[in-house]
Amino acid sequence: MRIEIICTGDEVLTGKIVNSNFSYMAQKLEDVGLAVVWGTTVGDDRGTLLSAFHLAAARADIVIVNGGLGPTVDDLSQEIAAQAAGVELELHEGWLEKMEGFFTRRGRAMPPNNRKQAMLPVGSEMLDNPIGTACGFAMDIGAARFFFTPGVPRELRRMLEEQIIPRLLARNGAAATIRLKRYHGYGLGESHIDSLLQGVEALDPSGGVKLGFRAHYPQIETKLTIRGVDAEDVARKLAPVDAEIRQRLGNFIVCEDDQSLEGVVNDALGKVGGRLAVVETFTSGEIALRLAHLAGAEAVFRRGIIARDLHQVFESLRLPPHLDIGEYTEALAAEVAAAVREQAGASHALAVLIDLDEGADRMDLGGTIWVAVGREGDTVVRRARILGGREWIRLGAVELGLDCMRRYLQGLPVIERTDFERR
Amino acid sequence: MRIEIICTGDEVLTGKIVNSNFSYMAQKLEDVGLAVVWGTTVGDDRGTLLSAFHLAAARADIVIVNGGLGPTVDDLSQEIAAQAAGVELELHEGWLEKMEGFFTRRGRAMPPNNRKQAMLPVGSEMLDNPIGTACGFAMDIGAARFFFTPGVPRELRRMLEEQIIPRLLARNGAAATIRLKRYHGYGLGESHIDSLLQGVEALDPSGGVKLGFRAHYPQIETKLTIRGVDAEDVARKLAPVDAEIRQRLGNFIVCEDDQSLEGVVNDALGKVGGRLAVVETFTSGEIALRLAHLAGAEAVFRRGIIARDLHQVFESLRLPPHLDIGEYTEALAAEVAAAVREQAGASHALAVLIDLDEGADRMDLGGTIWVAVGREGDTVVRRARILGGREWIRLGAVELGLDCMRRYLQGLPVIERTDFERR
Repeated sequence: MRIEIICTGDEVLTGKIVNSNFSYMAQKLEDVGLAVVWGTTVGDDRGTLLSAFHLAAARADIVIVNGGLGPTVDDLSQEIAAQAAGVELELHEGWLEKMEGFFTRRGRAMPPNNRKQAMLPVGSEMLDNPIGTACGFAMDIGAARFFFTPGVPRELRRMLEEQIIPRLLARNGAAATIRLKRYHGYGLGESHIDSLLQGVEALDPSGGVKLGFRAHYPQIETKLTIRGVDAEDVARKLAPVDAEIRQRLGNFIVCEDDQSLEGVVNDALGKVGGRLAVVETFTSGEIALRLAHLAGAEAVFRRGIIARDLHQVFESLRLPPHLDIGEYTEALAAEVAAAVREQAGASHALAVLIDLDEGADRMDLGGTIWVAVGREGDTVVRRARILGGREWIRLGAVELGLDCMRRYLQGLPVIERTDFERR
Repeated sequence: MRIEIICTGDEVLTGKIVNSNFSYMAQKLEDVGLAVVWGTTVGDDRGTLLSAFHLAAARADIVIVNGGLGPTVDDLSQEIAAQAAGVELELHEGWLEKMEGFFTRRGRAMPPNNRKQAMLPVGSEMLDNPIGTACGFAMDIGAARFFFTPGVPRELRRMLEEQIIPRLLARNGAAATIRLKRYHGYGLGESHIDSLLQGVEALDPSGGVKLGFRAHYPQIETKLTIRGVDAEDVARKLAPVDAEIRQRLGNFIVCEDDQSLEGVVNDALGKVGGRLAVVETFTSGEIALRLAHLAGAEAVFRRGIIARDLHQVFESLRLPPHLDIGEYTEALAAEVAAAVREQAGASHALAVLIDLDEGADRMDLGGTIWVAVGREGDTVVRRARILGGREWIRLGAVELGLDCMRRYLQGLPVIERTDFERR
């Protein structure tokens, strides 16, 4: 099945907005085993839209068009779709009523120009939009099936997942059930994970399991796409591969599916009634930012302290000057963690202190990261050395700090060497 | 001049990476008065690449191709470009030497497969890449001029700005000098700015000044593209428009060109030898994160304190419980700012406290933002009410807090109503 995507709109064409809808759609389709082979971006212009529709209709089986369904004069998708197929537009009474209800519930009259959003090409199939006034629609243009979707990302996402992907899978004659299983890793590089997982797909001899990766430093996502006739079949195929992946990646799987590393930390603390205090230097508040806004964090996140250097950390925590703060040591990191924990009335502390090398930022600039994590009477200090420039070190330190906390809370070894470390 | 862009590569086509190169190129071209009319995305596949090149060659005057210049077997741009033009590839001795020098200086031998990067279509013009091994090249395919560029963003950017745009402007017969002037605004909505700036372009009667906007909440950028025969001509055209824009937008211009709001705050503090302490609640460290990593911040940023609620702010600052911390007041916000300033040994303080409405997150959830800003004996408190959901309030509060600090340091009124406020 040959799939093309056409993104429309002057804002996308001129680069005013980055086209994340395209990458979202391509990834979602790949997750269910479908590949996009051609992408087109055109503006709100009748001639180029018509030309783009004709070209795609001549090449593809499936075309997903994004944008141009709004109420204003530069929203042209319905009009040009009808023109490309040689049909008229007609009022979709059902959608008009739904839009009117939408406005009535908000105590407003529907503006007259919204009526345009219910004008669909004759013979098209309406696609519901439960969260907006732009309905989608599907129709044939030439030999291709076109799906028209709204440009608002959350409306597009819902329509793609709930309405379009099921129709594509049905047309494709694919197995009835497809599941995406994701493992979020931290600490192993992509080529290392790739070699660690050699052959796991073959543990399902039916060929129904496909392995893929998506790296976004410092995390890497391992994805399995599993096809089966039903949920039970999918679960049966997944089981041996899943067990093997857990075995091989071990403690380096930080969370799964829709979870986040910081969410796992927050939840684990919440479960034991824990309260967290954080101290950061070079990471400038990024660890606190990941944690403090989470649902449930009001009961967990106790305090964050941000300073530029160790002197200010000591001053801020009113630590006695008995430690030599000219040099980072295990004892010093542990002392900082204990102090912030006590002063914040917290049960747990996470301190991430960074001793950055001297000199201008460059690709091989290094930093030594000191992470102290724990609760009263039980603090673990983890030292790691990273090269790669300021931003690379900062990102790595945030992830390392959060992952040490996760490991501590899950009873796993806090100290386990990662691929990103040197020396 | 009809310009098309072709982005190549499986990583872009499958959505593994979001295609920010496209939006970057389109914006850069628009900034010099050139418009992109068609974008194409294809993978590392000979058939689709050839087809994409032929289609663009038949439609466009200028085609910019991005990606596919690397040393590996799936990098196909040179090969398919030669095929599309009906010419052979030949070794570019100059580029080969440059690459060999590149490796020699790093004490390594050039891997044999890098030689491929010096094979260019016969008759093409090499485009220098001073920071990578992938040179670009320009050539005619059909009636169109093609420019081939590397996929690595920083290499692309440099090649586009230094080599391709000058060639396009020369071909276009455009005025020799084009300048982009940018004003970053906070506090006014796009339609408000649009109406405030009605007619400013006409202040240059030659038609050489073009006005545009780019909104990314909570900031909005006002852009002027000025064309002239030389720098002096451009400056003369810009002057009356620039003066009028400053007059009409006034205090709502927070910075200009490559400046950032936080950079202006950091520099202004640095200039007076100031040292800053920050307290945040709902913004969770985002204000500290914007400030603490800046160049020069080691002398300015003194301390950041992050807490989830007012009680914890008071506890953290050891404030006496003489204030009724059940209710936010001007006095309370000022007290918090004064306390953190004193305790951190800072000259200036910025406190951003948020009283969020009860209830689940929704589009019209509101929050009251209390900003206290100042130095010893001179604290200003600014209250603002924003509706729009948790993320909208958080983003708005970060910007408002930083802008209050900027206004304070620049001697402007800290309290001036924005378009985002309600009640």
